[in-house]
Amino acid sequence: SRSIRLAAIPGDGIGPEVVAEGLKVLDAVAPAHDLSFEQTEYDLGAARYHRTGEVLPDSVLAELRDQDVILLGAIGDPSVPSGLLERGLLLRTRFEFDHYANLRPVKLLPGASSPLAGVGPDDIDMLVVREGTESLYAGTGGVIRKGTPHEIATQESVNTAFGVERVVRYAFEQAAARPRKKLTLVHKDNVLAYAGDLYQRVLKRVGEEFPQVETDYCHVDAATMYFVNQPRRFDVIVTDNLFGDIITDIGAAVAGGIGLAASGNVNPDGTAPSMFEPVHGSAPDIAGQGKADPTATILSVVMLLDHLGETAAARRVETAVAEDLIERAGAGVRSTAQIGDAIAKRVAG
Amino acid sequence: SRSIRLAAIPGDGIGPEVVAEGLKVLDAVAPAHDLSFEQTEYDLGAARYHRTGEVLPDSVLAELRDQDVILLGAIGDPSVPSGLLERGLLLRTRFEFDHYANLRPVKLLPGASSPLAGVGPDDIDMLVVREGTESLYAGTGGVIRKGTPHEIATQESVNTAFGVERVVRYAFEQAAARPRKKLTLVHKDNVLAYAGDLYQRVLKRVGEEFPQVETDYCHVDAATMYFVNQPRRFDVIVTDNLFGDIITDIGAAVAGGIGLAASGNVNPDGTAPSMFEPVHGSAPDIAGQGKADPTATILSVVMLLDHLGETAAARRVETAVAEDLIERAGAGVRSTAQIGDAIAKRVAG
Ligand SMILES: CC(C)[C@H](C(=O)O)[C@@H](O)C(=O)O
Ligand SMILES: CC(C)[C@H](C(=O)O)[C@@H](O)C(=O)O
Repeated sequence: SRSIRLAAIPGDGIGPEVVAEGLKVLDAVAPAHDLSFEQTEYDLGAARYHRTGEVLPDSVLAELRDQDVILLGAIGDPSVPSGLLERGLLLRTRFEFDHYANLRPVKLLPGASSPLAGVGPDDIDMLVVREGTESLYAGTGGVIRKGTPHEIATQESVNTAFGVERVVRYAFEQAAARPRKKLTLVHKDNVLAYAGDLYQRVLKRVGEEFPQVETDYCHVDAATMYFVNQPRRFDVIVTDNLFGDIITDIGAAVAGGIGLAASGNVNPDGTAPSMFEPVHGSAPDIAGQGKADPTATILSVVMLLDHLGETAAARRVETAVAEDLIERAGAGVRSTAQIGDAIAKRVAG
Repeated sequence: SRSIRLAAIPGDGIGPEVVAEGLKVLDAVAPAHDLSFEQTEYDLGAARYHRTGEVLPDSVLAELRDQDVILLGAIGDPSVPSGLLERGLLLRTRFEFDHYANLRPVKLLPGASSPLAGVGPDDIDMLVVREGTESLYAGTGGVIRKGTPHEIATQESVNTAFGVERVVRYAFEQAAARPRKKLTLVHKDNVLAYAGDLYQRVLKRVGEEFPQVETDYCHVDAATMYFVNQPRRFDVIVTDNLFGDIITDIGAAVAGGIGLAASGNVNPDGTAPSMFEPVHGSAPDIAGQGKADPTATILSVVMLLDHLGETAAARRVETAVAEDLIERAGAGVRSTAQIGDAIAKRVAG
């Protein structure tokens, strides 16, 4: 049997609840596919920070690096200054492990319901490839004369040919493997002239390696509008870190809600473990109540299995989710664990 | 009669078509309210650029400064490098004339139809106050090693206490004057730590002057989702230049489409003329065909009249638009001029 080292970082708020269901489903699918998951749980997030002052100790980062794959719940809590855990733990991991391809499918599954009138599964099926290691997320910038009427606060978006080229090439590969073979660059090159121009030139140059892929460009502001009124316009999208953050939340909204949106922080070169996580946050308002929908985490497990090359197991979980979604439409409200149980049962059966 | 100097900048693509209808309606409303508009049309945009190489000559800028108010159509054409006209003309005017409050109502009018299922006029009624003179729009940044594998392109977001405070105070004033009295800051303070912190501190400090206004904070990614699935959450929003650009396009999409979205680039201190324009772009694909909806421009004329203090005239045009919208639901397709004629007729009659 194939043994896979998996680190689970349940995190804050509803994170532990949804990760428990993700692991439950993973345990259910493993035997039939001859997989065994060696799981290590890492206690990181607000509780640890309050207890020890630690966010992500270097020793933990080193241990995580030895894993095959990471499953993360959610990070962030109102008791901790905004951004401290997000930057120190989530973004640090993305950067240190070179998760340059942040994959976010935006797909309306049968059974899921879109808030858009008259829109069905055929209308929304895209893959957003969000750059994960640069742009405004670099964290550079600063403040002078803080607290005075003359304060200036800056943030810098750093974009490199190296960083842009690798994510654009990855996106072309994804587009080439899909039926529509269309890649849209989403940026704001009429205002962000330097970074936008770099993305445009790289798209053109790398595109020569993929003559079968049709390319297209769309300003980020227009793209958000098209997500709402012309979602069919898009197949694969490549975009920078910040724009990707924003458009994938609208994507989640139109494709059935944040309870269904999965993601992978992928290091395509395999030099460090990739990390899978639901797009949603820690939702402290509903934490501990069994109200969170674990489906986004379970779909992140599907992406995790695909990443490991375990496509048969991935399809099995995916099918179970799809069946559950169809069944749940119109049925009563179920708890986090009930949804996980139902999907695990389908997977095992 | 009150004489008002108005500069019209029709611009590119559908700009001239929609501005013509805006001016038609203005001419129709003027007599009954004892107004006379001294109109000067400025030939700026792609055609002028190709003819003379000029984007916005200093002499024209000086003339514009002497006007009371500006009505702009749209700027941008595929024959000109992306951003050249937008930055040289539109953004330059916003910056030089200190249009720090970019007002963008997001309001679902009766008769307009939202792509969101089950959403009516009571559900969407917000005002976005977008900062208009700083953040990533400052244009600072640069590129080194261009065209090499070691290229680095940066963009800088510049935010000042001066700039943030004046727009936040303006937004509080707007919120205080509305029934719900709620102001939401939209930012991304968990990633853009310096700029986000500045906005948060200013919100808190200025908020002390407005105890009657309830304040709230929302990350930009979550905000875009709420626009789609919980639009009632928002009353007045204050946000930075880039986030405001993005969220107001989703706002337009959910509130009946870009054909209805109006905006004002306002200098609340009156040190230079304010400029009103539809949120939509130049739409070169449908230019010259009489297909563009002039309603966004006509609603921008409403904002222009309100800005001039001509509230009775503003209400008259607004009512005419509202009536036309109700009538047009279910009716046949009309041309740009037919819509303008119908609204002008209601206004005059
Ligand atoms: C929590 C936050 C830092 C993060 C991001 O901005 O990337 C989140 O919004 C996401 O999309 O994964
Ligand atoms: C044309 C472009 C520069 C402009 C902007 O980004 O502000 C437009 O999108 C807008 O919203 O007015």
